[in-house]
Amino acid sequence: MVETLHHPSTPDRGTMPELSVAELASVTGGEAFGDPERLVRGVAPLDEAGPEHLSFVANPKYFAYIHATRAGALLVPAGAEVSLPEGCSGVRVADAHVALSVVLPLLHPEPPPPPGVHPTAVLGAGVRVGEGASVGPCAVVGDGSVLGAGCRVDAHVVLGAGCEIGEGATLHAGCTLYDRTVVGARSIVHSGARLGADGFGFAFTAGEHRKVPQVGRCVLEEDVEIGANSTVDRGSIGDTVIGRGTKIDNLVHIGHNCRIGRHVIVVAQVGVSGSTKVGDYAVLGGQAGVGGHLTIGARARVGGQAGVTADVAEGATVSGYPARPHREAMRAQAAVFKLPALLKRIGEIERALLGKARTED
Amino acid sequence: MVETLHHPSTPDRGTMPELSVAELASVTGGEAFGDPERLVRGVAPLDEAGPEHLSFVANPKYFAYIHATRAGALLVPAGAEVSLPEGCSGVRVADAHVALSVVLPLLHPEPPPPPGVHPTAVLGAGVRVGEGASVGPCAVVGDGSVLGAGCRVDAHVVLGAGCEIGEGATLHAGCTLYDRTVVGARSIVHSGARLGADGFGFAFTAGEHRKVPQVGRCVLEEDVEIGANSTVDRGSIGDTVIGRGTKIDNLVHIGHNCRIGRHVIVVAQVGVSGSTKVGDYAVLGGQAGVGGHLTIGARARVGGQAGVTADVAEGATVSGYPARPHREAMRAQAAVFKLPALLKRIGEIERALLGKARTED
Amino acid sequence: MVETLHHPSTPDRGTMPELSVAELASVTGGEAFGDPERLVRGVAPLDEAGPEHLSFVANPKYFAYIHATRAGALLVPAGAEVSLPEGCSGVRVADAHVALSVVLPLLHPEPPPPPGVHPTAVLGAGVRVGEGASVGPCAVVGDGSVLGAGCRVDAHVVLGAGCEIGEGATLHAGCTLYDRTVVGARSIVHSGARLGADGFGFAFTAGEHRKVPQVGRCVLEEDVEIGANSTVDRGSIGDTVIGRGTKIDNLVHIGHNCRIGRHVIVVAQVGVSGSTKVGDYAVLGGQAGVGGHLTIGARARVGGQAGVTADVAEGATVSGYPARPHREAMRAQAAVFKLPALLKRIGEIERALLGKARTED
Repeated sequence: MVETLHHPSTPDRGTMPELSVAELASVTGGEAFGDPERLVRGVAPLDEAGPEHLSFVANPKYFAYIHATRAGALLVPAGAEVSLPEGCSGVRVADAHVALSVVLPLLHPEPPPPPGVHPTAVLGAGVRVGEGASVGPCAVVGDGSVLGAGCRVDAHVVLGAGCEIGEGATLHAGCTLYDRTVVGARSIVHSGARLGADGFGFAFTAGEHRKVPQVGRCVLEEDVEIGANSTVDRGSIGDTVIGRGTKIDNLVHIGHNCRIGRHVIVVAQVGVSGSTKVGDYAVLGGQAGVGGHLTIGARARVGGQAGVTADVAEGATVSGYPARPHREAMRAQAAVFKLPALLKRIGEIERALLGKARTED
Repeated sequence: MVETLHHPSTPDRGTMPELSVAELASVTGGEAFGDPERLVRGVAPLDEAGPEHLSFVANPKYFAYIHATRAGALLVPAGAEVSLPEGCSGVRVADAHVALSVVLPLLHPEPPPPPGVHPTAVLGAGVRVGEGASVGPCAVVGDGSVLGAGCRVDAHVVLGAGCEIGEGATLHAGCTLYDRTVVGARSIVHSGARLGADGFGFAFTAGEHRKVPQVGRCVLEEDVEIGANSTVDRGSIGDTVIGRGTKIDNLVHIGHNCRIGRHVIVVAQVGVSGSTKVGDYAVLGGQAGVGGHLTIGARARVGGQAGVTADVAEGATVSGYPARPHREAMRAQAAVFKLPALLKRIGEIERALLGKARTED
Repeated sequence: MVETLHHPSTPDRGTMPELSVAELASVTGGEAFGDPERLVRGVAPLDEAGPEHLSFVANPKYFAYIHATRAGALLVPAGAEVSLPEGCSGVRVADAHVALSVVLPLLHPEPPPPPGVHPTAVLGAGVRVGEGASVGPCAVVGDGSVLGAGCRVDAHVVLGAGCEIGEGATLHAGCTLYDRTVVGARSIVHSGARLGADGFGFAFTAGEHRKVPQVGRCVLEEDVEIGANSTVDRGSIGDTVIGRGTKIDNLVHIGHNCRIGRHVIVVAQVGVSGSTKVGDYAVLGGQAGVGGHLTIGARARVGGQAGVTADVAEGATVSGYPARPHREAMRAQAAVFKLPALLKRIGEIERALLGKARTED
């Protein structure tokens, strides 16, 4: 083995912090039971946790496994009737996932990247780098781009010219922002996401598809998260906008000029065609597709793999292809599986009624 | 703020050019009306344009919004009956999108990247760089690759050995070309596209999937466009070929040994399995999937999310899963939503005819 | 043309090796016929091969084209009745694809990358680089990561801290591994794959989706292959695991905490939601989607574009949305296309029986 510098004794960097059950109750607004002095360091799944770990149960279907856990402490839903195995203490919390969102950063703190600009990074003319911002190895920042205070631009990120990155935003390794892309404060862009690539716009003339230049921007508001290898195209003319607090999973495609509202959830591999508007708090299930120039109302829910070909009303739930109200789609789908039997029944009726046999069934 | 060099007053680089309405009519082959001396700089959407902007209406459903625009000038379809608001001049054009493809490069010229090889780029042995070509920061070009005159290889592009990039082609930041990939003149490859990765070929033996080495190439002809994060695999033996003028959107997968014809449109998230042939001018709708070893005829149209499991004839339009002629698929799909009511009707018939009740409906 | 160093006369590096028909029979365990001294160098498709090439036929539907090939030698299935054109020798093999997996590396040897660390690579503290390992231009390896003997880390690969890369593994250009990702021996990760990005985990509280930190790992066992631009998220708590010998195609999404078994095949653009288990030797067809917290049994087969919403039994074959046993789904689907005619027949019955006409058909 060729070795550089030292061997760490463990891949985890730094010492893991400890919290007592009483402290866990305090930070989560929960209620401790069992031994409040019990210490845990690290969170583990119910079936893998040891006495040094905190674990949790959120879904009642996992209550049956509680008796067998070796975890030192558990987060459990406040209303649930659960009894913990010996040696395990607990914290009753209103919502285990919310409690985890508070506890995990304390028990698994992520080491911040070193502030400053790595010597291998390439910064263009007029780039401004905010206080405490970190620019990683080989990152490339185009002319006139502005990096907000405390933001993190990881290795191999490429920013075009005139980009604006908000305070505390994180651009993970190898994502690309085309010219003039805007990323709001505290937003997170995962590895390989492409923000602001050209929309798919062509004019057919003289037997060929002629490119219509795309000159709008891609704009993410604050607290947005974009998954790995997702693509959000720039507007053709005007901007593509992802609203504040919206979370987009991996391998999602958002077409040019879309306006995605606030606090929207877009699950993996969804595709939204150009110029479509999605209202606040809507949820698009995995692999769903939405046509262009449509409006999905606020709080609407689109089922996984649904194909949306028309506007969806506020608060509606749709599924299937073409997408219909979910109950209607489910009833129709269930009926489809009765069809072979139905064909037989109709044949019987015809024979009884008309005295003829149909051969094509 | 740590600052490098200067602050630009605006993220736009350079001064935006201006054109008069008369000049717009001249370059688009259209007919000016209103004030031919009116000057515009920049194109904006109908509802965001100010007096300094050109805007456009292509789709009659937006005619109703014309009266409220503040745009200084409008491109309108030649045959349409539209009246412009006061202070707004117009140009009647045969096709607004075609006109935009002419006007946008004039009003929003893209600054060319600096020619030459960036000092951080890494060039292998025997690389040839054409006149006026640009190789960006940290780009890596493998042994023996040839970069045509005026081509653009952006930051973080990685080319394997023996690649050939045509004149005036553009490889956007962070795309990857495996060994011996060919990109035709004027083609555009967007960020994160992967050309020439191994096809998915395995031989099952002795309880495991043994890799069949992939030794063919990935070849793009001229004027092709490949969207962000799309993948076109190399041929297993022989080449995968994307024909001249074909446009492929984001997150599309093209399997090994496919032959995609000329001027084909492939919308986002489509997947085409290995060895399939797609004819000239075909259109594959978003998220459609096409099985392997099939032939899609010239000018065929495949609906969004369709699943193609058999050959498609020239000029045919298919949709649904498994894909069928579109009219047939639509009629069948419409009938599905009548099924729950139909089940009731058949129950009634049976009761009337046979005097029995079926419980399973 | 600006030129650096020399012009290679051909993009192929090195001289291509030659094998005789007798040698081909020997390495494939097959039986030579025709001229055993016949030499070939390189493999080509049946219709493109010249006298210097080996070609093959695996599928009986291509037997009809054998008479026209110009190939110098052919691999043919042992049991098949085929007669070769004049000048063409053959090798009868049990399985042509298995034979190709043996022959291709001999006739198309891939030049190994130069061992050692490229001067532009950036290695963190405590990185260990195994004997014969290759680290390419601009690769970034985080603190404490371990690269096994003979592994290949291509240009622009980014490894976080504490990653472990097994012996002989290959990480193609521009893939990204988040902190503590593990890649087993001989595994292959294609360009743009993202291993260990955050899972999609949020807790809804106070009107917004609060991020639940993801602290588990992404672990690939030995002999895994991950396609270009695919994403395998890290576990939320606990690990996401891809089992030994499993092959994953391009643009696939595997959610957090999934446990994919051994020797599984996952075709392009499949999405698997979080915490789902897939059994050994299962096959997931292209663009299929699998819901979260499900179990797909060993050797189960999921059809292309299927939407799996419930557990799938060992050995079962399912298709459609929601996925059902394949035969049932096919029969139901076929019946759907009889629906428009069926509606007419029911109308006739009603008229005959009840003397009334329904207008809504």
